[in-house]
Amino acid sequence: MRDLKRFLVGRPLKSSALKEQRLNKLKALAILSSDALSSVAYGPEQILIVLASISLLAFWYSIPIALCVLILLAALILSYRQVIYAYPSGGGAYIVSRNNLGENAGLIAGESLLIDYILTVAVSVSAGTDALTSAFPQLHDFTVLIACVFVVLITLLNLRGVTESASILSYPVYLFVFAILVMIGGGLWKIVNGGIPQHHTPIGTFVPGISLFLLLKAFSSGCSALTGVEAVSNAVPNFKEPPAKNAVYTLFMMGSILAVLFAGIMFLGYWLGITPKAEETVVSQIASEIFGRNWVYFMIQGTTMLILILAANTGFSAFPLLAVNLARDKYIPRMFLIRGDRLGYSNGIVTLGAAAILLIIIFRGETEHLIPLYAIGVFIPFTLSQCGMITKWVREKSVGWVSKLVVNLIGAMICFIVVTIFFVTKFTQVWPVLIFVPLIVYLFHRIKKHYVSVEEQLRLTETEKTLQLDGNVVLVPVAGITKVVENSLHYAELIGDTVLAVYVAFDRESEIEMKQKWEQWRPNIRLITLYSQYRSITQPLTRLIDIVQAKAQENNHSLTVVIPQFITKKRWHDILHNQSGLLLRLYLLYLKNIIVTTVPYRLKK
Amino acid sequence: MRDLKRFLVGRPLKSSALKEQRLNKLKALAILSSDALSSVAYGPEQILIVLASISLLAFWYSIPIALCVLILLAALILSYRQVIYAYPSGGGAYIVSRNNLGENAGLIAGESLLIDYILTVAVSVSAGTDALTSAFPQLHDFTVLIACVFVVLITLLNLRGVTESASILSYPVYLFVFAILVMIGGGLWKIVNGGIPQHHTPIGTFVPGISLFLLLKAFSSGCSALTGVEAVSNAVPNFKEPPAKNAVYTLFMMGSILAVLFAGIMFLGYWLGITPKAEETVVSQIASEIFGRNWVYFMIQGTTMLILILAANTGFSAFPLLAVNLARDKYIPRMFLIRGDRLGYSNGIVTLGAAAILLIIIFRGETEHLIPLYAIGVFIPFTLSQCGMITKWVREKSVGWVSKLVVNLIGAMICFIVVTIFFVTKFTQVWPVLIFVPLIVYLFHRIKKHYVSVEEQLRLTETEKTLQLDGNVVLVPVAGITKVVENSLHYAELIGDTVLAVYVAFDRESEIEMKQKWEQWRPNIRLITLYSQYRSITQPLTRLIDIVQAKAQENNHSLTVVIPQFITKKRWHDILHNQSGLLLRLYLLYLKNIIVTTVPYRLKK
Repeated sequence: MRDLKRFLVGRPLKSSALKEQRLNKLKALAILSSDALSSVAYGPEQILIVLASISLLAFWYSIPIALCVLILLAALILSYRQVIYAYPSGGGAYIVSRNNLGENAGLIAGESLLIDYILTVAVSVSAGTDALTSAFPQLHDFTVLIACVFVVLITLLNLRGVTESASILSYPVYLFVFAILVMIGGGLWKIVNGGIPQHHTPIGTFVPGISLFLLLKAFSSGCSALTGVEAVSNAVPNFKEPPAKNAVYTLFMMGSILAVLFAGIMFLGYWLGITPKAEETVVSQIASEIFGRNWVYFMIQGTTMLILILAANTGFSAFPLLAVNLARDKYIPRMFLIRGDRLGYSNGIVTLGAAAILLIIIFRGETEHLIPLYAIGVFIPFTLSQCGMITKWVREKSVGWVSKLVVNLIGAMICFIVVTIFFVTKFTQVWPVLIFVPLIVYLFHRIKKHYVSVEEQLRLTETEKTLQLDGNVVLVPVAGITKVVENSLHYAELIGDTVLAVYVAFDRESEIEMKQKWEQWRPNIRLITLYSQYRSITQPLTRLIDIVQAKAQENNHSLTVVIPQFITKKRWHDILHNQSGLLLRLYLLYLKNIIVTTVPYRLKK
Repeated sequence: MRDLKRFLVGRPLKSSALKEQRLNKLKALAILSSDALSSVAYGPEQILIVLASISLLAFWYSIPIALCVLILLAALILSYRQVIYAYPSGGGAYIVSRNNLGENAGLIAGESLLIDYILTVAVSVSAGTDALTSAFPQLHDFTVLIACVFVVLITLLNLRGVTESASILSYPVYLFVFAILVMIGGGLWKIVNGGIPQHHTPIGTFVPGISLFLLLKAFSSGCSALTGVEAVSNAVPNFKEPPAKNAVYTLFMMGSILAVLFAGIMFLGYWLGITPKAEETVVSQIASEIFGRNWVYFMIQGTTMLILILAANTGFSAFPLLAVNLARDKYIPRMFLIRGDRLGYSNGIVTLGAAAILLIIIFRGETEHLIPLYAIGVFIPFTLSQCGMITKWVREKSVGWVSKLVVNLIGAMICFIVVTIFFVTKFTQVWPVLIFVPLIVYLFHRIKKHYVSVEEQLRLTETEKTLQLDGNVVLVPVAGITKVVENSLHYAELIGDTVLAVYVAFDRESEIEMKQKWEQWRPNIRLITLYSQYRSITQPLTRLIDIVQAKAQENNHSLTVVIPQFITKKRWHDILHNQSGLLLRLYLLYLKNIIVTTVPYRLKK
């Protein structure tokens, strides 16, 4: 077990090695931007699909819509820059909303993001697997299995530790950026040299049947290209010194690359007259139009596949950190606070991996219809964190607060509009949000309430008098006269002022026999025999314990039940012995509140 | 939990109610013969399938083959009559073989039967479900699920207790017998009145390409109609007084009914010129030929379905009793000896149900190709028990032993020949027997060796001096200063001569802080702080325990680790607390052999 873990995860690291695990800008860009960048593989397509539903004439609208998306992107990047400087200890939307808008706003933001990271992993890995199985149709039957294996691999990479996974992950991300840039460059070169005529109707053509509703729907679909931009702001503490500055630099780099890739693909898609097809992606169509199906095309497709799968990694970087913040505030189980052998928050990593695998299995790898849910789950915390920043500026009124306020105000407005558009145009796909968000917020509160109440109950109060005990009554259930029992009785005599042995008989003959044997063996210890006509050990024992306990309390004695247990040499031997001692212990401890001592007796063979 | 169990299984019965649970002849016939009788639903078909592979001319051979099967049946019934009288305490093939031929012969017989009962359940329930889904094709997709539900229902019936399941099960068995008798009677009536001409070639026609090999194969296939006849001999102790006599009566009744049904179906099949079809059973063909598809036909089909599913019940009556015999002799885990709430051997019943469900799921409900394995698994113990009887007569030479010897000798020879024919004609289907039989016999021996060795180790020997302890060192791992810890320390001071508190710190700051706080709170108890740079609690603690234990042993003191544990009010709260105490306990107990005391502290909210 331990060896397997070592092999998969690596040897444990000392806590002092934590500083060394921090990210430089180049690695951070790779690790935190794969989600955002990979969005260009499906974002443009989402816009074209909506436009195609109107008419071929409507495709020119993709250009103004793309411009709107880019404006939104710029607003988000500028807003998040301010978030990073204002909250250099990370936490992103959750911290910002909680500190400025109150507990529930923070919880809604945090929860949306937690779920979103799970969706990120499920959606991107499924999309990447689809890309792979489209290339190799013989693998199609194993889609779910392959996707799950990918999730497991990424989980293991993350359990190994942040920098090691970054080293591996930087290559595909940069390769993808390079490949798409090559595609855009090649396309522009051909267009400039007149190699490709313009296909679609010119910008401004009148389109019959067009409506604001449809254009808004197309715009909101395109917003799915912006998922993932918040990742940097959550991960500020992971950066090398100075973290805030490095994080902002990374954010801007990511924003710029994303803008270039998105704009390039949108423009080429429009110029080349690409219409979305069920069996081929838009990127694939553009690439094959420009280069034909040669090695350049396959490089583009291959890196797209890779980055889609690796986009999941963003979720793995952000989820555990967010979980730590929520756990520190006692809204989720405190196990998310524990650092694993390799200093990563292993419980968060494993939980995320498991939840994603569950989603993939439930949806049989067809997680595409989760995309709208995923996008709205991003824009709710976007809106909340912008609003939080606004209140912050208004309250603090620090130097230059007006210009900062304006930036966040614009950001908040745009994000709120996007959320509204989502609810209006895609209600059938996003309604579950309205159920799950309040439900989980309620759960968070319940958990916090429990933790607070436990703390109160455990806190030592000077006023309460502490209960001093005068003696100890020890009860030893015995199954016969053996070395195990002898061993336990010795111990019982050592710790107890009164020692009682109990024997539960299933028939009268064995009851009498045991009594006689005991009289000869240990006449000094009192044996109580109980006859159990329903063949249960627990029931008659419980009745006896109730009586003994009442008496012990009268004399201010504690009651201890000593359970003899022999430990077998080989693990499989355990099934050969009825584990009645184990069950009895759990029963007494959890339901009867009795102190239970297990005295082990090790078998040598 | 308990209420659900009560509802499904019924209220517990007193041990003294055991006598009342015994079977009268009529119920015993129903409960023990459903397996044997249901065999006529597929036995005749198995013969015809082999003959059909030769040529249509060969069908007349079904009559002499059927006669051979009937002779074999008569031999078996007579032999088992002698087994029942000789071994009125039941046990059948296992007991007979073990007592007369030695341990290994007994184990082979016992093991074959155990596996056979599992196969009985899986095969009959699958066949019954097939019958159902053939009638209602829309259910076909749910075959496996339906079969599993049937197994669960039969398991529950058996958990409720023997007589109650018998009451429910007697109706379908008798209905089936009645339905098949109606069919045979109706067929004979029509034939006598000239309603149906003879279809097949007359007996004695020369068949080109016929070989002894094929005829033997057909015969061995027909032997599958005899599976289940041993059930009565295993269940003798379940009968009302006088058990042996009642059992023999039941055995004869079952044999006669089986003979009549089998002979009738074989004859009608031959006379009506039935050829086996993939989509319709032989019984169904005969019934529709005689009656057409009216209510009589559906009654025959319906009761056939029912009895196939209920045939599984024979396995449920016999398996637990055989398991008790094997467990008493220490060859299988002793949990099979425990009587459940309703006095049945619940562990055997549940194990059988689970194993059958596993087989059904693995074979996706298509368990038909397990039939040969199942048949040979019956004839191996048949042969062994007959051989055992022979040695018994030769050794004891009691009154009339020669005639008894002759009966068993004939039985043994025929059974041995059948086994040989199986191996020769169906080797590709029965080879797994050659692997599993020795493997499981080996496992049985290993288990017995373990039990014997444990007994030796636990036995008290007068010569060994008993170790008296002079004192108790108590170690209390503490996670902070709370009421739980206070509570545990009180207890530790009560039972210990030396009390040590241990605190494991993950960073230097908390280590220093804890030391200072402790000094103010409990200066009289020594606190040892350990710094764990790998964030593990177990490792540094183990090192400390090793040191403390060595010192304790020097002074002839015992070492107790007291683990404070707070018990949450609601079960779901448990996931909110890291169960490090639980893990520590298991580690210390099983790997370090330390006495562990858990002091519960119950939360009130």
